[in-house]
Amino acid sequence: MKVLFIIGEEFEDIEVLYPFYRLIEEGFTPVIAWKQAKSKVEGKHGYAVTSDIAFTEVRPEEYAALVIPGGRGPERIRNLQEVKEITRKFFELKKPVAAICHGPQVLISAGTVKGRKLTAVSSIKDDVIAAGGEYVDDVVVTDENLVSSRHPGDLPFFASSLIKQLKSLKQ
Amino acid sequence: MKVLFIIGEEFEDIEVLYPFYRLIEEGFTPVIAWKQAKSKVEGKHGYAVTSDIAFTEVRPEEYAALVIPGGRGPERIRNLQEVKEITRKFFELKKPVAAICHGPQVLISAGTVKGRKLTAVSSIKDDVIAAGGEYVDDVVVTDENLVSSRHPGDLPFFASSLIKQLKSLKQ
Repeated sequence: MKVLFIIGEEFEDIEVLYPFYRLIEEGFTPVIAWKQAKSKVEGKHGYAVTSDIAFTEVRPEEYAALVIPGGRGPERIRNLQEVKEITRKFFELKKPVAAICHGPQVLISAGTVKGRKLTAVSSIKDDVIAAGGEYVDDVVVTDENLVSSRHPGDLPFFASSLIKQLKSLKQ
Repeated sequence: MKVLFIIGEEFEDIEVLYPFYRLIEEGFTPVIAWKQAKSKVEGKHGYAVTSDIAFTEVRPEEYAALVIPGGRGPERIRNLQEVKEITRKFFELKKPVAAICHGPQVLISAGTVKGRKLTAVSSIKDDVIAAGGEYVDDVVVTDENLVSSRHPGDLPFFASSLIKQLKSLKQ
C-alpha cells in the first residue's frame, strides 16, 4: 500500500523522515509529492528528499493515506489549488490523513477543519479555531480519519496512530 | 526497560532521533549519555537533545541495550576511557549493541570488533577490517548481540532489528 506525503521547501526534517522510515519499517511504500517530480527538496535542517511525483500527477485513489508534515513546508504549498484538491479528496474518500505541527495549515486552506477535533503546533491554534476546528492540546488527536500531533516530540504517538489506522484498513 | 544512547557533538541527527522516538513508540525508555549530564548536545543538522547522564555515571547493568549513532559524534567520544569501558561491558554482558554509520568507530576503539560480522558507513570499512572485523555491505547485519547498519537510509531495518532483539529479551 502506498502512502502519500505532500511536502514543501523547508519542511521540518524529522516530521518527514520519521513517518517515512516508519512506514517502510511496516511494509508500506511512502511516496513524496512536491511541485515538481524527481526534484531534491530540502528541509529546514538540511536533510534532502527527492520528490517522486508532482502534485498535479497525484491520484488520491491510489493511496492508502495522506501525511502532511510541518515546518515551513505547509505555508509554501497551502495556496496551491492542486494541494487543496488532493487534501479534500482524501477526506471525501474517508482515507486516513495525518498532519503534524504546521501541517494543519494545509487542512485549513483545503477547508477540511470545520467541525473536526484536531491538534497542531500551538502558534496556529487560533487559526485552527477560526477555521471551525476544535483544538485539543494532546500528543495525538484522532477524529475519525484525521490524526494530528503538535510537534516532533509527539512523533512516536503520531506514527503509531497513523499505523494503527493503516493496519485497520488492511483487515 | 531502559536503552542507553552514547552520543557526541555533531551526531547524525536522524540516527539519534529515529531510534530514540522508535523506542518510545515500543514502550522502552531511551536514556542519553554524554560527557556531562543535563546538557544540550547538538547534531550536525542542528537538532538538539539533552543528555540525561554523564558517561562516568553509566551503569551498563541497568540498561537493556546500547545504541551508538553515527555522524561526527563517535570521533568525539571514542577516545574516552569511560566510553570504551561502557561499550566493552555491554559486550561482556551479551546485551544488544546497535551501531550505525560512524558508530562502529566506538566499537573499534573499545576493541569489540575482532572476529565479528558487521557493517558501517563505507568510508570506515578499512578500519573495521583492520580491527579484525568482517565487513558486510547490507542494510543491517546482526551477529549475536551486535546490530549494525550503514547510513540513515538503513534506519527502518536497523530499528526493527534492534527492537526484535529487545523483544526477545522481554520473553
